[in-house]
Amino acid sequence: MLNIKKIDHIAICVGGLDKSIEDYSKLLGIEATDRDTVVPQKTEACMFHCGESAIELITPTPGNVGLEKFLDKRGEALHHIAFEVDDIEGTLARLEAAGIPLIDKKPRPGLRGHRVAFLHPKAFGGVLVELVEPSH
Amino acid sequence: MLNIKKIDHIAICVGGLDKSIEDYSKLLGIEATDRDTVVPQKTEACMFHCGESAIELITPTPGNVGLEKFLDKRGEALHHIAFEVDDIEGTLARLEAAGIPLIDKKPRPGLRGHRVAFLHPKAFGGVLVELVEPSH
Repeated sequence: MLNIKKIDHIAICVGGLDKSIEDYSKLLGIEATDRDTVVPQKTEACMFHCGESAIELITPTPGNVGLEKFLDKRGEALHHIAFEVDDIEGTLARLEAAGIPLIDKKPRPGLRGHRVAFLHPKAFGGVLVELVEPSH
Repeated sequence: MLNIKKIDHIAICVGGLDKSIEDYSKLLGIEATDRDTVVPQKTEACMFHCGESAIELITPTPGNVGLEKFLDKRGEALHHIAFEVDDIEGTLARLEAAGIPLIDKKPRPGLRGHRVAFLHPKAFGGVLVELVEPSH
């Protein structure tokens, strides 16, 4: 039903970017890139590119109750998986027509200028899934 | 420190493979492959290949207390991330020399005949990381 081109990234929720970027770049042997604040999502994030995919670190900015609760409950942990698709609006329409529960019925702006949308975790056995349509 | 070639797979822990394979293959639009029981790890698993990476579903076989506790606590959820490396023994020796906590100091047999080893979650901010050296 999804027409997945690749795994775009795996996101890890962390308590703060500065310390985590230092730790992860040392362990992974990869420099962090694309650090930015995504205002509509109340997150700050960066990427560690690995082959065709990436590890994303995300941290809540003030007022992001969802991610603050996640950190309280689980600590730093795997947060979501993101798949690249090439027609995010068509994909969302197809999912909605099939009764798949969505958080975002329309794409919103994400990191790196990409258009993104989240499925409801119920859609995927409890796992939060993001769809990404690259801007380039 | 790790010399990562790519993200080999992302593992999702599920309560049982039959129902999950049906649900995930429908949603992903990908057939499950490589279904097998990994006796030393007390798991049953399968893969959904996506580009150069894969989604792995894993479920405990009887006596796998760790995965049973994970399911009790979190339900079906992202469980670990696996990186492909090309010299798993050298990588483990390098990590151990640097004081990185490891679950496996030597590789053990994994799915698809690959050699695998787990880092201790403390090594990676609480996230469980597997290293994979492919058999082919």
